[in-house]
Amino acid sequence: MKELKKFLTLQVAGAFFLAVLLVPATTGKASAESEQWSVPVAPGGPFDRVYYPQNAPVGPDTHFGPRSWTQMNLGPKHNAAVDISEKSPEWFHRGVFWRYAEARAWPLSRKIAFGAKTYGEVEAGAVQTQFYGNALGVSEVDGVVYAESDDMFAYALNARTGQLIWRTSPVGNHLMGNPLVKGHFVYLASGGVGFNFANVVRFSKKGRAVRGMDVSYNGIYALDRTDGHLIWHRGSVGEAMPTPAIDGNVLYFATGSGSVHALDRRTGRPLWTTHLKGNDNMSSPAIDHGQLFLAMATPPRLYSLSAKTGKLLWSRTIKGAANTGMGDVSPAVGNGIVIMDTVTNPAMIHGKPTLDPVVEAFDAKTGKSLWVRSLGRGPKPPAFKGGVPMIHENTVYVGSPVNGAYEALDLATGKLLWRWSRIKAARGAPTFYKNRLFISGEDILYMLDPRTGKETGSVKIGGRMGIVSPTIVGGTAYLANTWDWIVAVPVGKFVNP
Amino acid sequence: MKELKKFLTLQVAGAFFLAVLLVPATTGKASAESEQWSVPVAPGGPFDRVYYPQNAPVGPDTHFGPRSWTQMNLGPKHNAAVDISEKSPEWFHRGVFWRYAEARAWPLSRKIAFGAKTYGEVEAGAVQTQFYGNALGVSEVDGVVYAESDDMFAYALNARTGQLIWRTSPVGNHLMGNPLVKGHFVYLASGGVGFNFANVVRFSKKGRAVRGMDVSYNGIYALDRTDGHLIWHRGSVGEAMPTPAIDGNVLYFATGSGSVHALDRRTGRPLWTTHLKGNDNMSSPAIDHGQLFLAMATPPRLYSLSAKTGKLLWSRTIKGAANTGMGDVSPAVGNGIVIMDTVTNPAMIHGKPTLDPVVEAFDAKTGKSLWVRSLGRGPKPPAFKGGVPMIHENTVYVGSPVNGAYEALDLATGKLLWRWSRIKAARGAPTFYKNRLFISGEDILYMLDPRTGKETGSVKIGGRMGIVSPTIVGGTAYLANTWDWIVAVPVGKFVNP
Repeated sequence: MKELKKFLTLQVAGAFFLAVLLVPATTGKASAESEQWSVPVAPGGPFDRVYYPQNAPVGPDTHFGPRSWTQMNLGPKHNAAVDISEKSPEWFHRGVFWRYAEARAWPLSRKIAFGAKTYGEVEAGAVQTQFYGNALGVSEVDGVVYAESDDMFAYALNARTGQLIWRTSPVGNHLMGNPLVKGHFVYLASGGVGFNFANVVRFSKKGRAVRGMDVSYNGIYALDRTDGHLIWHRGSVGEAMPTPAIDGNVLYFATGSGSVHALDRRTGRPLWTTHLKGNDNMSSPAIDHGQLFLAMATPPRLYSLSAKTGKLLWSRTIKGAANTGMGDVSPAVGNGIVIMDTVTNPAMIHGKPTLDPVVEAFDAKTGKSLWVRSLGRGPKPPAFKGGVPMIHENTVYVGSPVNGAYEALDLATGKLLWRWSRIKAARGAPTFYKNRLFISGEDILYMLDPRTGKETGSVKIGGRMGIVSPTIVGGTAYLANTWDWIVAVPVGKFVNP
Repeated sequence: MKELKKFLTLQVAGAFFLAVLLVPATTGKASAESEQWSVPVAPGGPFDRVYYPQNAPVGPDTHFGPRSWTQMNLGPKHNAAVDISEKSPEWFHRGVFWRYAEARAWPLSRKIAFGAKTYGEVEAGAVQTQFYGNALGVSEVDGVVYAESDDMFAYALNARTGQLIWRTSPVGNHLMGNPLVKGHFVYLASGGVGFNFANVVRFSKKGRAVRGMDVSYNGIYALDRTDGHLIWHRGSVGEAMPTPAIDGNVLYFATGSGSVHALDRRTGRPLWTTHLKGNDNMSSPAIDHGQLFLAMATPPRLYSLSAKTGKLLWSRTIKGAANTGMGDVSPAVGNGIVIMDTVTNPAMIHGKPTLDPVVEAFDAKTGKSLWVRSLGRGPKPPAFKGGVPMIHENTVYVGSPVNGAYEALDLATGKLLWRWSRIKAARGAPTFYKNRLFISGEDILYMLDPRTGKETGSVKIGGRMGIVSPTIVGGTAYLANTWDWIVAVPVGKFVNP
């Protein structure tokens, strides 16, 4: 009965956070020896780390971009743009072009997702994003582009040349977020969308389930930034699909079991854990002025926690929020206002399922509702059901997953400034840089006049972009896509005319 | 509304089989050009095929083992043993020793599964099997060992030396079965255990769900046997975790949507599809005298179909069968009798969940029940809930997943001949070769006297073996395990004393 006892203990502990630290890491550095084979990766095999120091940036190129990348889309406002000084090398301003085919790359010339004949074209796009490609965009720090892919690898590329510096797959699970970079660390978060059968049954009985439990390995993998070697890792029972957030020496992450964790980012040591209800699907925590903001699905709810203690400060829902909507969306925070959106009020119209995406603004301190706005009802989309909001100065930019429109709204009042309708599904946060708003839509990078919403130009990228925000550093836009490519395109002539 | 329409069309078609044949394959051979990039795998990247012709067997070694491998565990009786002629080279008789670390290999010296601190030791073993390791054993044909792994790669190794001939990952999903080998083809079946959220909701509303739908890519991948290049592939909506079966030029496979398919194995062209209820988890079809035998879970039921037409001949359940039990078990067929087992009658005993595994024999022609036997109630195991039965001459050998006992039963009457209790969970089919019964249990290969059930010897393999049947060819036992290793151990001295 020993086996039974263990199994029961697990069942009871199932929804909670249990951790492992196989690599001694009290100093934050593992010896070369202890790193070897601390996770199931055959040395020299296809998942093993490769490292090409000759491809790392040199000289002034090591000063290209920010010194760290500590939240999804760079910060709580979700504006993944980094300015450069006037005196920078010429390529910083002009921009560069390159393409890098990741492990499950599909030719950029292909118009239709792999598997379209099995799943249908739209659903196949979502499947390829979730299992083969890049769900979000990339991070860029000190001349290096860092990317996570659902192909199960993380990549570090030279931002100027696109050459591979390192590639590694310390965990056989999907990597859906932005790699975070701080000090000599890069942090990956692993998790996938699936449920095991025990949780399917649990949902039917109790209306709740842990996403990702017993479906491969979830949690945080901390790597050395220079060569990608594994320093520490920490497991979680639920998936860790959202991008974590870093403040100082603390890393925060949320999971498919509704848990939120604070770790010492140097060692992986747990500082606090808070158990909320539901699943965090893709709602990456934003941190601002000592408060964490994130949302869960099933039940749908926005939470603010104290970053220091994990204590719940307030929580709110959006009226009529549909099951998975809120847990997909990463709240944006700026000027003391939290912007959240979700699909709401499922309804059959002419026999077809529809949803109404709604944006709501809350006071960051109190959670008080400031304004609510519907983006307009439309057909139910597959997979990710939200638009990631972005705040720049006094404006919110947000897209609708059901009709593809992007809207610019006044941050304080929610008043519509303009609306741009060009693509079918709008999910990724736009990026504001200098005099342009960048939006990745389907296979194209669009540029808009941020004051009017008028399209001023576009660059064909190829493939398909899901929730991808363009990362703009000086004159280059860095993108990643469902076809499992990382692409750099020069946009200097548009922003530095 | 175009997107909505497509989505709805898909929803309606969801449970059905939709196919894709991206590579022109009417001749059964693809040109080198059309093979390139027909699936999302970056040329030269870590998932790309590697081929080392210098490692292929030469001379008489190409005659080691059978000429084809057309069902799980070699045939409908599930006895994965191949005799060799007296005049064979000496190593055929004596046996060889080698070890091959697959892509997600974990040191064989490790006693405890990776992730044990997150999931608990027992559950972590099941997770490592399902996501990183080998679920079943290997196939062996003409001096080459073929293996599928849940690390997403398939491998061809020289049976004498263990050297890699080719390795490929044409699909980013788990490969859980025996590769089938016939003519110049090797066939892989892809699928994983997970459910997407839409099917979680569907199960709660309708009590049924498609396993594997929208969770990566499922179906059959046909490779060239010599170098592993992809010839054709065919998608299915539900997972294809069970091993297919081949008879002549027809390949049969069953899926997580309850569908059973017959394809022309040379081209992938569909011949017939039959829709049954439930999910096939790991119940690999057995084919015998023109009849297919396989089982589904949710609802639990054993089916016999006409191999020629797909027409349902008969179906039966086992009284009290628990949800996932029957769909996990591959029926064994021999002497006109079908042997099936399943866990039954879940009950809490002293507050702990228990199950009663039951074996039942049916007349292959009529489905009439011949006998029923309980293997004895015990604690509910994680994941795979059955023992794969094996028939040799007039005896059935079958293990119990709840208490680890193996029993030898009279095929005609179900009368107990002996019972061997040594390990905790018995799942894999034993292998009968010459005067020995081989059983892989946990980290050890056991040898029993098949007449008495007395243990006569054992060989330490390391790691953990799940549903692994030893593949015995002459004097060598070939095994694969949860730690993602393929191992050859010499057993000639035991069987050729």
